[in-house]
Amino acid sequence: MTVSTVSAEEREARAALSRLVEPGNARLSRTVAEHGAVVVLEEIRAESDVLGNRSDLADRLRTLDARADLERAAEQGIRFVVPGDAEWPTPVEGLDACGRIEGSGGAPLGLWARGPLRLDEVAAQGVAIVGSRSATTYGTTVAGDVSARVAHEGWTVVSGGAFGIDQAAHRGALAEGRTAVVLACGVDRVYPVAHQRLLEFVGEHGVIVSELPPGCTVTRGRFLTRNRVIAALSSGTVVIEAALRSGAINTASWTNELGRPLMAVPGPVTSAVSAGAHQLIRNRGAVLVTRGDEVLELLAPMGARTLDEPRGAETPRDWLDPVEKRVLDALPVRRAAGLASLATRAGLARARVRRSLEVLVEAGFAEACEDGWRLGPLGRST
Amino acid sequence: MTVSTVSAEEREARAALSRLVEPGNARLSRTVAEHGAVVVLEEIRAESDVLGNRSDLADRLRTLDARADLERAAEQGIRFVVPGDAEWPTPVEGLDACGRIEGSGGAPLGLWARGPLRLDEVAAQGVAIVGSRSATTYGTTVAGDVSARVAHEGWTVVSGGAFGIDQAAHRGALAEGRTAVVLACGVDRVYPVAHQRLLEFVGEHGVIVSELPPGCTVTRGRFLTRNRVIAALSSGTVVIEAALRSGAINTASWTNELGRPLMAVPGPVTSAVSAGAHQLIRNRGAVLVTRGDEVLELLAPMGARTLDEPRGAETPRDWLDPVEKRVLDALPVRRAAGLASLATRAGLARARVRRSLEVLVEAGFAEACEDGWRLGPLGRST
Repeated sequence: MTVSTVSAEEREARAALSRLVEPGNARLSRTVAEHGAVVVLEEIRAESDVLGNRSDLADRLRTLDARADLERAAEQGIRFVVPGDAEWPTPVEGLDACGRIEGSGGAPLGLWARGPLRLDEVAAQGVAIVGSRSATTYGTTVAGDVSARVAHEGWTVVSGGAFGIDQAAHRGALAEGRTAVVLACGVDRVYPVAHQRLLEFVGEHGVIVSELPPGCTVTRGRFLTRNRVIAALSSGTVVIEAALRSGAINTASWTNELGRPLMAVPGPVTSAVSAGAHQLIRNRGAVLVTRGDEVLELLAPMGARTLDEPRGAETPRDWLDPVEKRVLDALPVRRAAGLASLATRAGLARARVRRSLEVLVEAGFAEACEDGWRLGPLGRST
Repeated sequence: MTVSTVSAEEREARAALSRLVEPGNARLSRTVAEHGAVVVLEEIRAESDVLGNRSDLADRLRTLDARADLERAAEQGIRFVVPGDAEWPTPVEGLDACGRIEGSGGAPLGLWARGPLRLDEVAAQGVAIVGSRSATTYGTTVAGDVSARVAHEGWTVVSGGAFGIDQAAHRGALAEGRTAVVLACGVDRVYPVAHQRLLEFVGEHGVIVSELPPGCTVTRGRFLTRNRVIAALSSGTVVIEAALRSGAINTASWTNELGRPLMAVPGPVTSAVSAGAHQLIRNRGAVLVTRGDEVLELLAPMGARTLDEPRGAETPRDWLDPVEKRVLDALPVRRAAGLASLATRAGLARARVRRSLEVLVEAGFAEACEDGWRLGPLGRST
């Protein structure tokens, strides 16, 4: 076990709150951060009006046994990581400084986790790769490639375990390195059911994370709330294929709120699932990325990894100066041309043509014949 | 004929220079702008060293008859437009303030033109749409659509008449409005030969333009020189599918030099012909555009035409507040649920659930049954 400064009471109180109140309650998050979960729970128990919900919460609290809950979770290999634990990923606390999006916000009270990968390690070098459930083959191919590349360089790929881009991102990462799934239900559950094998594998080699306690099922609201955890656990977010209104756009909004780098992979403008990615580049300051190296460049500490601007292959032609190029272009392929003819075709003075021809012949671009000059072997090949 | 303040001598001198010297000679352009073409030609005739080419130019000048040249051109329906003509497109003079790219630069000495469309009208509302000769079906489809849209709104589509994107851009424009072809050879020539019909049509309904006098053939250098005229005749440039080193990237560089809006259409990152467009967005300040309306928005005077940020279709769900949405998500489809159960599933106080249920029932999202509530007709449809 990792060293922790957290009391058992505080952990139990947070566990109880995580079962009692929907995640993403910014007001509760701030109150707990200020007074501690034990105090907040006491107030709820005393039916005071901490959250404006009065006796209702108190009623439900009476049915909970947080200690037993934590023990049951531990038996299933599930830990509940809270602030003060060595494993607590402090970057998620950045959420407390953010506004609300779609009604939710605030740092998690704790994170339920299953799998060997530590959450602080995820957050130290995590990158979110998210996108559409109804991705195209293009999208999943690119997601897999980008993910494999960044995982190979030691980054943990964080995503939502959903169909489409999420799945491709997790798979790409598994082959090369580490990945974390953030679920919108309990980490003991399999959602979607078709991803049983994927989740098993991540549970054994990576980590499955959720704000929701074991047993909880997904709701639409929980997907949105979950997205802010994906963004907060990551140093940056890459969106690949996202419809205009989608979970990935929501994750992107959280990334912007957190002030972390947002990236998007373009696609055909005729593809509806790329419309969201294009919108992010046009209107939300997302950087267009086309491959894993460009993602790595943006995530690296300033200047630590800079790519040369991509350019086409260099050809022998590139060695020539503009005048020489012009003479080269004027050279006939077969029948040789004289100096006057070359000068006219190149639009250059004869003296300059003669000087350039010396260079071109020397380098093999041109060859001198009895009656003039024509393309040489190197000239014909370029 | 249009009114002109240009003397016959000046026009003839410029015509002679355009046959004598390759286009894109920035130094010549500035000298002519300062002293007039007549003076420059006199100095060449006197074998002085205006361009550092000495007697060579003088020799070639002796073989020219510019007046006859202009007459012959006029017989073919070709006019030579120069500064001072009412038709002269003054925006091309912006080139004189630019640096050189790939060895060429400067404003044209004059523009040879064939077709009813006036060059000043082209430049007043012209947009360049350029891209790869080896375009994909995706690229030509998008080019045709974008071009048709902007042409429909009164913009003249300026391009290079080449295979691929250029051809698609011209065709799209012809169907809806006006287009101009800028050639890298004389406007009497058909290049490429396969575009005979296209060039005939543009010659009848639009305009074919070149810096090169009639009869001149294409050279590699002339393509690059030509690109700066495409950029200069246009208020902005749209690049659709361009390899990393390509004519379209060269046109984009000129657009940047001229300080005019540069746009690029993204494509699959797996497509080599989209790499140039992506590079322009990443590194050269090109704005990502996905359709004609976005091009129109950028070309319009500031704020004259602003698009709403694209978003998915609005659904009845959008009318609800976050708490109501959460209750809606908790409602079962068939068997009704009681208040306590809904409160637990929604993670909300019973009082709040009750208030939300009133709204949801009223709007048709929920329906009240004997033993609780379930989704109503509107709830089931969204």
